[in-house]
Amino acid sequence: MIVIMRPEATEEHIAGVCERAKEMGLAGHPCYGVQQATISIIGFDQTIAPGDFSALPGVDRVMRVSAPYKLASRQSGLPATAIKISSKVVIGSGLTIVGGPCSVEGQAQILEAARIVKAGGGHMLRAGAFKPRTSPYQFRGLGIEGLEFLADAGRATGLPIVSEVMTPAMVERVADSTDVLQIGTRNMQNYDLLLEVGKTEKPVLLKRGMSATLAEFLQAAEYILSAGNPNVILCERGIRTFETHTRNTLDLSSVPSLKSLTHLPVVVDPSHGTGRRELVLPMARAAVACGADGLLVEVHPDPDRSISDAQQAISAEMFALMVRDCQAIFNVLHPEFARQQVQINAE
Amino acid sequence: MIVIMRPEATEEHIAGVCERAKEMGLAGHPCYGVQQATISIIGFDQTIAPGDFSALPGVDRVMRVSAPYKLASRQSGLPATAIKISSKVVIGSGLTIVGGPCSVEGQAQILEAARIVKAGGGHMLRAGAFKPRTSPYQFRGLGIEGLEFLADAGRATGLPIVSEVMTPAMVERVADSTDVLQIGTRNMQNYDLLLEVGKTEKPVLLKRGMSATLAEFLQAAEYILSAGNPNVILCERGIRTFETHTRNTLDLSSVPSLKSLTHLPVVVDPSHGTGRRELVLPMARAAVACGADGLLVEVHPDPDRSISDAQQAISAEMFALMVRDCQAIFNVLHPEFARQQVQINAE
Amino acid sequence: MIVIMRPEATEEHIAGVCERAKEMGLAGHPCYGVQQATISIIGFDQTIAPGDFSALPGVDRVMRVSAPYKLASRQSGLPATAIKISSKVVIGSGLTIVGGPCSVEGQAQILEAARIVKAGGGHMLRAGAFKPRTSPYQFRGLGIEGLEFLADAGRATGLPIVSEVMTPAMVERVADSTDVLQIGTRNMQNYDLLLEVGKTEKPVLLKRGMSATLAEFLQAAEYILSAGNPNVILCERGIRTFETHTRNTLDLSSVPSLKSLTHLPVVVDPSHGTGRRELVLPMARAAVACGADGLLVEVHPDPDRSISDAQQAISAEMFALMVRDCQAIFNVLHPEFARQQVQINAE
Amino acid sequence: MIVIMRPEATEEHIAGVCERAKEMGLAGHPCYGVQQATISIIGFDQTIAPGDFSALPGVDRVMRVSAPYKLASRQSGLPATAIKISSKVVIGSGLTIVGGPCSVEGQAQILEAARIVKAGGGHMLRAGAFKPRTSPYQFRGLGIEGLEFLADAGRATGLPIVSEVMTPAMVERVADSTDVLQIGTRNMQNYDLLLEVGKTEKPVLLKRGMSATLAEFLQAAEYILSAGNPNVILCERGIRTFETHTRNTLDLSSVPSLKSLTHLPVVVDPSHGTGRRELVLPMARAAVACGADGLLVEVHPDPDRSISDAQQAISAEMFALMVRDCQAIFNVLHPEFARQQVQINAE
Repeated sequence: MIVIMRPEATEEHIAGVCERAKEMGLAGHPCYGVQQATISIIGFDQTIAPGDFSALPGVDRVMRVSAPYKLASRQSGLPATAIKISSKVVIGSGLTIVGGPCSVEGQAQILEAARIVKAGGGHMLRAGAFKPRTSPYQFRGLGIEGLEFLADAGRATGLPIVSEVMTPAMVERVADSTDVLQIGTRNMQNYDLLLEVGKTEKPVLLKRGMSATLAEFLQAAEYILSAGNPNVILCERGIRTFETHTRNTLDLSSVPSLKSLTHLPVVVDPSHGTGRRELVLPMARAAVACGADGLLVEVHPDPDRSISDAQQAISAEMFALMVRDCQAIFNVLHPEFARQQVQINAE
Repeated sequence: MIVIMRPEATEEHIAGVCERAKEMGLAGHPCYGVQQATISIIGFDQTIAPGDFSALPGVDRVMRVSAPYKLASRQSGLPATAIKISSKVVIGSGLTIVGGPCSVEGQAQILEAARIVKAGGGHMLRAGAFKPRTSPYQFRGLGIEGLEFLADAGRATGLPIVSEVMTPAMVERVADSTDVLQIGTRNMQNYDLLLEVGKTEKPVLLKRGMSATLAEFLQAAEYILSAGNPNVILCERGIRTFETHTRNTLDLSSVPSLKSLTHLPVVVDPSHGTGRRELVLPMARAAVACGADGLLVEVHPDPDRSISDAQQAISAEMFALMVRDCQAIFNVLHPEFARQQVQINAE
Repeated sequence: MIVIMRPEATEEHIAGVCERAKEMGLAGHPCYGVQQATISIIGFDQTIAPGDFSALPGVDRVMRVSAPYKLASRQSGLPATAIKISSKVVIGSGLTIVGGPCSVEGQAQILEAARIVKAGGGHMLRAGAFKPRTSPYQFRGLGIEGLEFLADAGRATGLPIVSEVMTPAMVERVADSTDVLQIGTRNMQNYDLLLEVGKTEKPVLLKRGMSATLAEFLQAAEYILSAGNPNVILCERGIRTFETHTRNTLDLSSVPSLKSLTHLPVVVDPSHGTGRRELVLPMARAAVACGADGLLVEVHPDPDRSISDAQQAISAEMFALMVRDCQAIFNVLHPEFARQQVQINAE
Repeated sequence: MIVIMRPEATEEHIAGVCERAKEMGLAGHPCYGVQQATISIIGFDQTIAPGDFSALPGVDRVMRVSAPYKLASRQSGLPATAIKISSKVVIGSGLTIVGGPCSVEGQAQILEAARIVKAGGGHMLRAGAFKPRTSPYQFRGLGIEGLEFLADAGRATGLPIVSEVMTPAMVERVADSTDVLQIGTRNMQNYDLLLEVGKTEKPVLLKRGMSATLAEFLQAAEYILSAGNPNVILCERGIRTFETHTRNTLDLSSVPSLKSLTHLPVVVDPSHGTGRRELVLPMARAAVACGADGLLVEVHPDPDRSISDAQQAISAEMFALMVRDCQAIFNVLHPEFARQQVQINAE
């Protein structure tokens, strides 16, 4: 951590900062510039906040040097982490495509959706049983019953399933019925929920908050990791900007950025990331081209009649086309996986 | 709701939209423009989402006409709502100033803070017992014990208290010890929590999400109102923008905007809104000048030693000065309250 | 254009809006909803602004229906436009890769850069002779001399060149020496400059303003088109958001969005779009994968010694790798061009 | 400037950074932390860019310590600057209120507007003769003729006038007819224009770019100052955010922030800052309450018929009310000026 002093700061002010550092078990090393002094604070700064120094007399501002997420960081020396979901699905090894409707609407609908995902070449099934909705008057999902329909559809097709959990009290129940727990964008900083999923061993798909910086995103992952669960999958799903043509602005540069900052796998949701059906295919292709480990896509047997988020759901045909294009791009960029895939198909 | 058709949309497409409206118990009225047709959807559109129409063939986009928050809206015909907290404190009638430290750090600290608030002319005490923190390695509050210290300090000084509740399971417990429940910015869209506080009759201070539009903010309030609790106080606390000089960008224009959109009272938090101690006083004055019903401010007996958010805590002297300035501005703008205040002082 | 009336608006207010429409040669068609009325304004609304109605008594707000850019719009019925730069380079037909240093630093440097671009498989040379710089104390380019060095390098390698023009008075001079005029992000709404380049027939590469919506971007293009120059190439180069890890947030979803809104070709600048050298290659690949017609990339003979924007310049090796990867992705997605390319190579 | 090295950086990398510093006439002082080293670069860093170091091997990132605007900075030791416009109007001494229509629409209109400003207690007249408009099809002002009408209205009422100049070639002509040159938000980084107005001695009212950070805003001012013109007035006019209820988000915290960063006076434009007539009065009051030196407000004889920006123009009555409220707030906060004002009135 580096403390920047004001130009008018006195020697006493500088000594005050160094003393505070000492009290905290750290060391302060001043350096005198032409206009002002800076003080390097030496020691593990994981547990200290800039605010511990920024209010001291003579201080202009404080800048953090090392990443405030030890376990999630690349600096921890770990190689890229791959997370095994089932014998066939390992996120972070090859391309993993997760598809399904926004919501479980009924038993027949989710089963048909699962078959579409399977037939189209997808690897995993997604759907919401508990839905966070901006308005209290909109459909909030079928709840436990929806979860059971989803689990049935997963078993019928052999696809592992992922579904959202919205509150700490439901974590155990949702974990019982799913292969991956999803934390939605509105809950990225719901710390009680993060700690609760952190106590399980279930893989967690953590969506980026709609106005979260990458540093905050990784600190949210750190909550889960530090509670004991090492299986975190990061999901870019668009951030909030001034642009209104798209529902969100899909920040694809977060993919290679996260890859350099953390060892955790990264998937992309082009459906919420754009909010427009016609943009899903091109942005899915782009996500794979910049290094995503997987995709999370809304596909519906009858997209126009989707109860929630109809405008971003794609059809079975579009889904199959997307899988084909994305796999082709992945193979061009990773010829070693293209070979493996042939072997798997030949099993 | 208005459905804008694409220029190339056919009569069949237009008929399809009108049919969908009919199925939903609504009526569709087409209007033919030079370039394209539009269809007005007539009926209460509270429960329908733009997505119900936006995915139909020939549709370009859908625009909502009426506000999606019936109970919170000015359109509901209610006059401005004032919320009684105690015999002396009524938010929405006169200027209400809430002060206190970011966190309860101990029994002596919170008692001293309460005395500072009382002596400086504040009306209510705030402090966090449960703290949402971006990093899992930072101080997360004293919990239940902190809540008890806070309640003691309130009783000792006669100040009503407000404190944050972070998870549905804790709502009852926190409501037992406080006069107002606070929902923090990160939980503005934690719907299970909103519904849970909506089941109580406790006044709720709802902070704007850091990237929430006013429409989303009012829909979050609608969750609480529609669950049966009419006592919602809105709190502007800054939004996330590209500017990095301040921690957030305090959106003061939200104050008069909310006043025209809703009947609920609006308070402003200039501490989190700026993240800088030296900006608290000027922005508190500005908040009162544009019509805020109250202020929520971080004040600490020893600001530089504040365990959390030290850089935005103000001193006892600064707090008293702020109350004096803000009350003076309020009196200039509301001479009728200036008179009342004299009467109360004379009781 | 649709005028939304307030719930309390009277018949007189509605008549007032219709009258104003009539005065403007338009027609107003009221439609009565449950809560409020709306009025469709019929007629070409290209030249009217929402403000023409939004201030009338009883009006809540005004929403535009048709796109405010007639010439740039897909609605104008034009097929996709390809822009011929030279006998070999046609932007909008195949993949066009433009490379070069941020600034012309000297005769030898720009010649070497041109050779790198040529050898790496690039199609066009870019470099700044006039540089807009945030600080008045930074290098602002070699000016006219730089322009001549650039033109020499283009001639020596047979590469067409593109360079920025910053002020109306210089348009003719810069047009004399270049094949494409670049309008930088800070000048996207410098209307005198847009009109001046609109009077030439030179192709114009128009960069998106760093906080411009797509609608504003297309209206800036409309300035050039309406002044008589049909040769506009749009360039996505990142927008300003709250994220600080990258210099800008590259909004790749703008590429397929623009493709559906306009007939003009779209290229992407992953160098400014990210501001980080290590992100250029993955984001270039992603740009091609989501449909970009070309790339604009900073490449430098000695990237670490680049006078401006060193942190985003890539090396000759990286450039060649990028061209190879991008062409491979392009060929997977456009097999018809892959064939053509072979034929060209065989010429 | 501080260079943060990567954790894996070697001694050689550190030496490389120090060497580069030496080549530039600076000194590098390394400091070894637990996880990584940092290097303080000592010397006047006005003319160096972070990019000079950020691309060197082993460097993670570079942080600037001192402000990149020497002349505009408070660090330069200057007291607050007041700028004399006429014998009666000094911006930065007392409260200065500038009013007038968005555009000069005709001789009678601007004269009537001037009389409204004068009668309402305003100090200066504003109106656009050259208008930057997002669409090429909208009214772009009366040009030179408008400028003459404006000058006539100023003379007739004794009010100094301010009007926008959009292009370097027009600076001399506009300066001849006005007392203050305005640089609009879209031209804040039009550097040729900044340099041109910097060569005059006319006071310049510089509007903040709609997505400019305070640091960029002050560097734009630095362009003018460094070209020789010390008379720069900064104008906050709202920034672009995700919120759509208001046209822009008026960033009032920029007022006290700028006051601490620079010695230049700061005024606020609540008309463009909100884009809504009903928000102008409350936000004008708030601007004064947080320390603005003045206001720039759109007032029109017949607001509903304003040719441009009608929705944000206020009436003569509202203007007079605004002046009264703002002056009352100013007097409460600055009792010394309240006294002076009485003396002036008594002249």
